[in-house]
Amino acid sequence: KNRARMLISCPDGPGIVAAVSRFLSEQGANIVQSDQYTMDPEGGMFFIRIEFDLPDILSHIEKLKQDFQAVADQFQMNWSVHLAGQKKRLAIFVSKEDHCLLELLWQWHAGDLYADIAMVISNHEDMRELVESFEIPYHYIPVTADTKAEAERKHLEIIDEDVDTLILARYMQIVSPQFLKHYPNRIINIHHSFLPAFVGGKPYAQAHNRGVKLIGATAHYVTEELDGGPIIEQDVERVSHRDNVDDLKRIGRHIERIVLARAVSWHVEDRILVHENKTIVFI
Amino acid sequence: KNRARMLISCPDGPGIVAAVSRFLSEQGANIVQSDQYTMDPEGGMFFIRIEFDLPDILSHIEKLKQDFQAVADQFQMNWSVHLAGQKKRLAIFVSKEDHCLLELLWQWHAGDLYADIAMVISNHEDMRELVESFEIPYHYIPVTADTKAEAERKHLEIIDEDVDTLILARYMQIVSPQFLKHYPNRIINIHHSFLPAFVGGKPYAQAHNRGVKLIGATAHYVTEELDGGPIIEQDVERVSHRDNVDDLKRIGRHIERIVLARAVSWHVEDRILVHENKTIVFI
Amino acid sequence: KNRARMLISCPDGPGIVAAVSRFLSEQGANIVQSDQYTMDPEGGMFFIRIEFDLPDILSHIEKLKQDFQAVADQFQMNWSVHLAGQKKRLAIFVSKEDHCLLELLWQWHAGDLYADIAMVISNHEDMRELVESFEIPYHYIPVTADTKAEAERKHLEIIDEDVDTLILARYMQIVSPQFLKHYPNRIINIHHSFLPAFVGGKPYAQAHNRGVKLIGATAHYVTEELDGGPIIEQDVERVSHRDNVDDLKRIGRHIERIVLARAVSWHVEDRILVHENKTIVFI
Amino acid sequence: KNRARMLISCPDGPGIVAAVSRFLSEQGANIVQSDQYTMDPEGGMFFIRIEFDLPDILSHIEKLKQDFQAVADQFQMNWSVHLAGQKKRLAIFVSKEDHCLLELLWQWHAGDLYADIAMVISNHEDMRELVESFEIPYHYIPVTADTKAEAERKHLEIIDEDVDTLILARYMQIVSPQFLKHYPNRIINIHHSFLPAFVGGKPYAQAHNRGVKLIGATAHYVTEELDGGPIIEQDVERVSHRDNVDDLKRIGRHIERIVLARAVSWHVEDRILVHENKTIVFI
Repeated sequence: KNRARMLISCPDGPGIVAAVSRFLSEQGANIVQSDQYTMDPEGGMFFIRIEFDLPDILSHIEKLKQDFQAVADQFQMNWSVHLAGQKKRLAIFVSKEDHCLLELLWQWHAGDLYADIAMVISNHEDMRELVESFEIPYHYIPVTADTKAEAERKHLEIIDEDVDTLILARYMQIVSPQFLKHYPNRIINIHHSFLPAFVGGKPYAQAHNRGVKLIGATAHYVTEELDGGPIIEQDVERVSHRDNVDDLKRIGRHIERIVLARAVSWHVEDRILVHENKTIVFI
Repeated sequence: KNRARMLISCPDGPGIVAAVSRFLSEQGANIVQSDQYTMDPEGGMFFIRIEFDLPDILSHIEKLKQDFQAVADQFQMNWSVHLAGQKKRLAIFVSKEDHCLLELLWQWHAGDLYADIAMVISNHEDMRELVESFEIPYHYIPVTADTKAEAERKHLEIIDEDVDTLILARYMQIVSPQFLKHYPNRIINIHHSFLPAFVGGKPYAQAHNRGVKLIGATAHYVTEELDGGPIIEQDVERVSHRDNVDDLKRIGRHIERIVLARAVSWHVEDRILVHENKTIVFI
Repeated sequence: KNRARMLISCPDGPGIVAAVSRFLSEQGANIVQSDQYTMDPEGGMFFIRIEFDLPDILSHIEKLKQDFQAVADQFQMNWSVHLAGQKKRLAIFVSKEDHCLLELLWQWHAGDLYADIAMVISNHEDMRELVESFEIPYHYIPVTADTKAEAERKHLEIIDEDVDTLILARYMQIVSPQFLKHYPNRIINIHHSFLPAFVGGKPYAQAHNRGVKLIGATAHYVTEELDGGPIIEQDVERVSHRDNVDDLKRIGRHIERIVLARAVSWHVEDRILVHENKTIVFI
Repeated sequence: KNRARMLISCPDGPGIVAAVSRFLSEQGANIVQSDQYTMDPEGGMFFIRIEFDLPDILSHIEKLKQDFQAVADQFQMNWSVHLAGQKKRLAIFVSKEDHCLLELLWQWHAGDLYADIAMVISNHEDMRELVESFEIPYHYIPVTADTKAEAERKHLEIIDEDVDTLILARYMQIVSPQFLKHYPNRIINIHHSFLPAFVGGKPYAQAHNRGVKLIGATAHYVTEELDGGPIIEQDVERVSHRDNVDDLKRIGRHIERIVLARAVSWHVEDRILVHENKTIVFI
C-alpha cells in the first residue's frame, strides 16, 4: 500500500509542524496520523511520528527524501522515512528457553507481527526442528568463553545486510560492545525482572528472596551497560507467598513473552524514538 | 500562561494538517502538542487536538478565532478553541453517597483537578457541612416525582451561564430530556457497573447474582438513553466468591471515584471529542 | 507422589472442619493446604478444598473413600477425592481459530498445564497437521444443521469414558442440552466478551459499536443457557478509539487464550466448586 | 459479635490442623474460615489463620487461650488470638503530604477501615485543622537532627500502651532502631517506589531518570534496614514518556494511598503473618 512513516527528532522551535506538513502536502501526501511530543516547551526537544499516504509511493519516495533534506537542515533534524509496506527483517537469538521465540513465531504466523523472521540463531541445537518447521533458517553457533569473539564474527557474517533488527529472546549470552556498535538501538532484549530491580542473573530467585508481591519483565534496547539500556516496555503480574521460585519462573514466562512481543511490534511499526537513555513510544 | 487548545472534527481529506498548522504558524503560534486520529482513511472522519502557545494570547485569541473560520469553512470543520489558563466551572450533583464528591474535592484541593467547583447541588442536606468547609456554595433542592420539573427549573436558574459542565457524582435522579438539551456532551455521569453490563438499578446486586470475577465502573456523557451515552472511561477490579454485595459496593466505590475523576480531568483539559455515540479521548 | 485433594460442599454447621481433619489425621494423612469458604455463617453453605499427603496413597485411597462416607453422611456432604498424581484427560474442541488451542498445547508442552490432552475434535480439517505434530489424535467431524445430532453421537462415541473434561477452545457450535447432560460442570467454554456484556455472536463488533474502553473474555462452564453458565475466570485489556474491530479481535485473542488457560488449569487442579450458578475458586 | 481470629506459625508436621480444629470444636467454637499455607511439605513451616465463632465469646476467651497453650506447646507454635469485634488502635505519623492520611481518614469515616485512629503525630502543624475536624487528637512534635532522640521519647510517651500499630503515612523521618524495638512488625511504612527499585530518597526523580514505563508503591513493615522490611503490598500504574517528575508524583500519590490503605486493612484484620523477612498475607 502507499503508506509511509516519518520519524523526526530535533531541538524545539516555532514552525516545525507547519514546515513538515506543508512539505508533505506539496508532495501530494495525506497525513493519516501524527503524534507529537515536546519534551519541554522552553529549549527542549521535539519529536514527531507522521503516517502519510502518497499515491504511487514507490516511484516518489526517493525524490521525497532528497527534497526533505532542505527542511531537515533548517531545523537540525534527525529523521527517517519508512515504507509501511516494507517489512522489517528480524534475526532472533535464542538459547534453551522457547517461550519468547514461540510467542514471536505464533504472532508472526497469525499476522499480528508485521515483520519477516529472516533467521534464528542459537548457541544450542534445541530449537532447530521447531524453527525449521516454519521454514525459517536456523543457525547453530556454539559460544564458549574462548570462542565468543569468533562466534560474534560468524553472527555478523550470517546476518550481513539482510537484517534490520536483532531480538534476544532469552539469549543467555552477553553481547560485546564491538558487536553492539553495528546495531545501535536495533537490538532488543527481554530481561526477566522489573528493571531496575534485580539486575543481572537469577532475577526470579532474587525476587522470591525479597518477597515482592508483583513480578515483572522489561524489554529494552541493548547498550554497553548490562540491563541498563533504554526501556521500551514493562509489565507485571501479581504473585503471593504461595509462589515458590519455580512458580515465579512460570508466571514470569507469560509476562516475558507478552512484553517482548509488544516491544518488537512497536519497533517494527516505527513507533519508537530513542533520546539519551529513554524511549519515546508513540502508541 | 499563553497556551490554548484547538479541537477539530471534520470529514477527512488531503491537506487538513497542513492548512491548520500553516494558519497557526502565520498567527505566530507554536504547536507544543498535537494528536490526530483518522477514523478510516477512505471517506472517514478526521479528528485533531492541538495545543499551541501564542505570545500575549489574550489580546489575539478573538482575532485568531475570526480568521480561522475561513479555514474551517473550507474543510467543513466542527471546531473550538479553549484557553488553557481559563478553568472550566463545574456544578457537582450528589445525593447521599459521598465518595465521588470527596475524590473530586480532594483532587481539586491538591491541584490535580484543574477546574473551579462553582457549586454543589443535592436532593439531600447531608453534604452541606463538608462542602461549605471548602467554601463552595451548597444548594439543597429536594426532588420528588411531583416536583421534578420544578426542581430542574431551579437547577437551570442556579447554574445559569456560570457553569460549563455538570458532574453527576452518584446523583440518584434521572435527568429529563428537556434538561439534557441545555448541556449536550457536558453532563458526565458515573455508572456503577462495567457498561453495557448491568444497566439500570442495583448493578452490584446484579453482578453478585451473576457471579462475575471483575466489577467495574463507567463514566459517560449523559444522553436520553439511560446508561447509554458515549463512554469516556471504564475500569475494573478483581473480586471473588468471598465478596458479598456489600463487599462489591465497597470495592466498587474505589473504582467509581477513580474512573469519574479521570473522566472529569480529561474533560476539563479538552481531551475529549464526541462522534456519534463514541468518544475520542486524546491522552 | 502421595498427594490427594478433597472437595466438599455441604450445609454449614458446627464441627465440620474438626470432623474432616480428625478423620484424615486418623487415616495417617497430613494436610498440606486447606481453603475454606462459608457463604453465610447463618444457615449458608460450607465449602472446603483440602490437599493432603498420605504415605502409599494408592493402596489406601479406596478404603479412605469408603470410610469417609460415614462422615459425609453426617453432614450431608457433596464430596470427591482426586489423586493429584493422576492427570485429568481433556478433549479439546476447536473450529478455525487456533490461538486458544495453541496456548493449551504450549502450556501443556511446557509442563505448565498438568493434564493429558487425549484428543482434539474439530468441525474443520485446518488444525490436523499442527495437532498431529504433537502426537495427539485429531478427529474431524463436520457439523451442519442437519447432521448435528449425528455429529454429537460421534463425539460421545469417540470421547467415551476416556475423557474427564471437554474444552471448547473457540468451537463455533452450540452444544445440545442432551449432550451437556453427559458432562455437567465438565465442559469449559471461552466466550470472547466480558460477560454478561455482549452475549451471543460477534461480541467484538458489538463492543466496538458501543465504544467500550476495555474488552474482555470469560471462561465458564457450559449450561443450557447460552453464555449463561457459571463464570470461572474473566479478564480485560484496555482499548481506545484507535482500535477498529480487527484490532479488538487481535487484542481479544490474547485475553481469550490467557483466560481459558487459567480456567483449565484451575479445573484440572480441582480448585473449582460449583454452587447454583456460581463458582467457588480456591487459588 | 462473637468472632475471633487465631494466627499460628510453627514447624510443619502431621496432625496440626486436626489438633487445632478438634480443640476449637471441643470449646464449642465453629470455624467460619480457615486459610493454611505450608512453605515446604518437607521440614518447612506451617501457617494458618482461622476465623471462628464462639457463643458468649467475651466470657470464654481467656479460658480458651489458657487451654490452647497445651496444644501450642506440643507443636512449638507461635500463636495469637484476636477478638474481631475489638478494633485495633492506630497512631498515624505524617509530615506535609496529606494524601495517605486523607485516604485512611476517609476509609475510616466510611466504615471501610475497621480500626480506631487514636491519634495523629506530625513534625509539622499543617494537618492539625483537618485532623481535629474528625475529633482525633493531633500531636505536633518537631524533629531536628539534635532533637530526634528527645522527639522519639515523646512519641513513646504519647503512644503509651494505648496504640497497637503505627502507620507512617509519608512521614519523612527515619525511625531509630531503639524506637523500632517497641513495635516489631507493628510499624507500617509506605515507600513511594516499587521496591527494591529506587530505595532511599527522591524515588520519582530516580524513576523518571531511568525511563521506567510503570511506577509503583510499596507498603512494608519497618525494620532496621532502610526500605528493607517485609513487603506487605505493592502496586503499579502505567506511565509514559509524556509524564515528567511532577506527573509521576501525582500518579504516584494515587498508588501510594491505595497500597497503604490495603496494607493497613489487612493488618487490622489480622491477615498478615511475618516469617523471616517476608509476609504471608491471607486474603
